Amino acid sequence: MSGQDLTPNIPEVVEELRQIFERYEQALIDKDVDVLDSTFWQSPHTIRYALHENGYGFDEIHAHRVARPPGPGIKERRIRLEILTLGRDFATINLEFKVRGKDLIGRQSQTFVRFPASEGINRGWKVVAAHVSTVNETPLWEK
Amino acid sequence: MSGQDLTPNIPEVVEELRQIFERYEQALIDKDVDVLDSTFWQSPHTIRYALHENGYGFDEIHAHRVARPPGPGIKERRIRLEILTLGRDFATINLEFKVRGKDLIGRQSQTFVRFPASEGINRGWKVVAAHVSTVNETPLWEK
Repeated sequence: MSGQDLTPNIPEVVEELRQIFERYEQALIDKDVDVLDSTFWQSPHTIRYALHENGYGFDEIHAHRVARPPGPGIKERRIRLEILTLGRDFATINLEFKVRGKDLIGRQSQTFVRFPASEGINRGWKVVAAHVSTVNETPLWEK
Repeated sequence: MSGQDLTPNIPEVVEELRQIFERYEQALIDKDVDVLDSTFWQSPHTIRYALHENGYGFDEIHAHRVARPPGPGIKERRIRLEILTLGRDFATINLEFKVRGKDLIGRQSQTFVRFPASEGINRGWKVVAAHVSTVNETPLWEK
């Protein structure tokens, strides 16, 4: 064990993530590809499972950003936002939301790691994995 | 910056996660609630977004395990499995799979943190956030 500090939800760390999260949400509305890109880890290992597609690696994720139509997106309103930080280098953000114009509940999960300055373009907090979906309308267990 | 080691995919760390992952997948098939529970962080902060429900906190997640019907589940076969470890204390596992008996693609994302021995029941690798979904059948962008 490395004995690293994994203290949950140190207030100033949570606040850092909250600001990054809000900036990202605004960038989705504005289709600000630079902000969307800079929020994610520029690595072939980065994964973003989106509503209609699976993006493996930063380049595919970037291509999905560019192809996305403009507009306010699907997030009608927030139902529950949970930010979890463990120590000063690791965080998850989970958002449950109402899907705009549909009787559906959406969920967005992001896993953040804080990379050291030596990582250059990847320094600071970056999303290494993300997953966006809706709760399934039809039960899948029966089959 | 803490200067912690974030080397991607150290082989023996990837192998640790692979074994934990396979044990968990078998426990889903067997409905082995003890293994399912022990894979997750016993904390009110743990989140598991599942196909038909959102579990906030270990107790809700446990209740969903107990309520889950027995059977092989929905995972017909694996399409793509990606294990990413960063250093020795942090990992994500993403699985894309064919949904059993349906023309649907499923995705399972898990975020793991390795907790020190001082955490007692939570020592070792634990899932702090998970998200299971299918790719949406109907586009949601148009509305």
